[in-house]
Amino acid sequence: MYQIIDGKKVANQIKEEIAAEVADIKKKGGKIPHLVAILVGADGASETYVSHKEKACETVGIKSTVVRMMESVTENELLEKIAEFNRDDDIDGMIVQLPLPDHISEHRVIEAVDPKKDVDGFHPANVGRMFIGLPSYVSATPAGIIELLSRYKIETSGKSCVVIGRSNIVGKPVSILLSRKTSRGNATVTLCHSRTPNIAELSSKADIIIVAMGKAGFLTADMVKEGAVVIDVGITRIRSDKTKSGWKLVGDVAFDEVAPKCSFITPVPGGVGPMTIVSLLKNTLMASRMER
Amino acid sequence: MYQIIDGKKVANQIKEEIAAEVADIKKKGGKIPHLVAILVGADGASETYVSHKEKACETVGIKSTVVRMMESVTENELLEKIAEFNRDDDIDGMIVQLPLPDHISEHRVIEAVDPKKDVDGFHPANVGRMFIGLPSYVSATPAGIIELLSRYKIETSGKSCVVIGRSNIVGKPVSILLSRKTSRGNATVTLCHSRTPNIAELSSKADIIIVAMGKAGFLTADMVKEGAVVIDVGITRIRSDKTKSGWKLVGDVAFDEVAPKCSFITPVPGGVGPMTIVSLLKNTLMASRMER
Repeated sequence: MYQIIDGKKVANQIKEEIAAEVADIKKKGGKIPHLVAILVGADGASETYVSHKEKACETVGIKSTVVRMMESVTENELLEKIAEFNRDDDIDGMIVQLPLPDHISEHRVIEAVDPKKDVDGFHPANVGRMFIGLPSYVSATPAGIIELLSRYKIETSGKSCVVIGRSNIVGKPVSILLSRKTSRGNATVTLCHSRTPNIAELSSKADIIIVAMGKAGFLTADMVKEGAVVIDVGITRIRSDKTKSGWKLVGDVAFDEVAPKCSFITPVPGGVGPMTIVSLLKNTLMASRMER
Repeated sequence: MYQIIDGKKVANQIKEEIAAEVADIKKKGGKIPHLVAILVGADGASETYVSHKEKACETVGIKSTVVRMMESVTENELLEKIAEFNRDDDIDGMIVQLPLPDHISEHRVIEAVDPKKDVDGFHPANVGRMFIGLPSYVSATPAGIIELLSRYKIETSGKSCVVIGRSNIVGKPVSILLSRKTSRGNATVTLCHSRTPNIAELSSKADIIIVAMGKAGFLTADMVKEGAVVIDVGITRIRSDKTKSGWKLVGDVAFDEVAPKCSFITPVPGGVGPMTIVSLLKNTLMASRMER
């Protein structure tokens, strides 16, 4: 019988832990952690993400500010705003919601954020520190995956792990984290991607499979061995006549056929997704303590 | 019949190319690239490495300065010296020879070097840029390995690659470089290490094996499939009654038994080793052109 990895439950539990810590800071007269989100333009999905982040901050007692800039803002104006927030001692963490309009360089913007306030963990200095094994802000999704493995006490040491997808924000960092000489590390990781000719052969031998392709239902039962742990990072909106909205969210895993073979599996929605916001909250708390 | 990957020959060829470029800069009245090496204390091996680097600079026409500091230098004094060189516009590249005495934090020293002058590629900002796929100084050994694969036109795309050893300066970066969506990338990489229970099983299926364990003769013939490409990064000094000095250098590969099964193999010495210094020279030339 497989066990569902309940990301929503774990996320709520961690939110309570963070709330308790923030309350403790408050009680001791310390500075309340403060997260600033910069939102450029009026992209619907970005609006939703940012408002979720705002609400999550509110829930745990972290102060949050959303700064809106017009779609037409120049790169320089944005960079100046970031520099202003870098200097502002009241601000502990800063995120710039992506994507940005085409006339603005995402890389220049990411590198403009003070690495000490880069709670998204996107700055090369943080990525590099994560890679080397120094204290760093790890970006939300890989941090959330490691946290889930940890909370469910899933052993990774000496295990074979197949990561499918080589993105900078999921596949590559999670492969490094799982390889590291630490708790929830010490796995032997194979990083697969679009140029891997034999993904099914590799995944069907793996103890742990992490799929981050963005292809609905990609991982099928024949690609998974009995007893495997499956972490599904994909999220695709497809038409459905079974929901009121006419849409439903599905992951990269063909859940119904894969789950029965697993020891542990994350559902979509409610698996990795809810963990991403708590990783951001944890990083903001860490920033306010200047723990790195 | 296997082909030897002749690192010494390739290194000399690249040195000639760099020398031609430096001569061209000189002819056009440009600024001669300048590398500074800081050497703390009097470690014999470090002295040797630094003098090799000095000599290599001389060969290609790059200006080099070696700054010696006493073993007893304080961390602050060293950091001040680095800050001075960061400000000095005549200096394009700077390296601090490792290891440093125990009372000095290597990480603090590495992070003190301006990433734009960090031609060793050790600064987290450079490591992070390499990881993300942005232009960066890649550290000497992984860069040298990719260069060898490239010069010998060894295809990596779609190939399976096993990297043995997860160090920050060889195993991990070369695994990321080979996974990237670029030329001499697009391989499916499995990163093995001391906690991998079945290295032989994995390596014996790999198209390309990169060994960086530091264990003399670790990779034996039974661990390699027919036609594999084997890159040996190990280097260990062992006693020998066949050499005048009484010592010889050996790699991580049991060369005599492994070579006959390979399509390509690097020898030790004369394989990856000679490539490391040319990577440093290339980075210094790149720094002087401010190409990143």
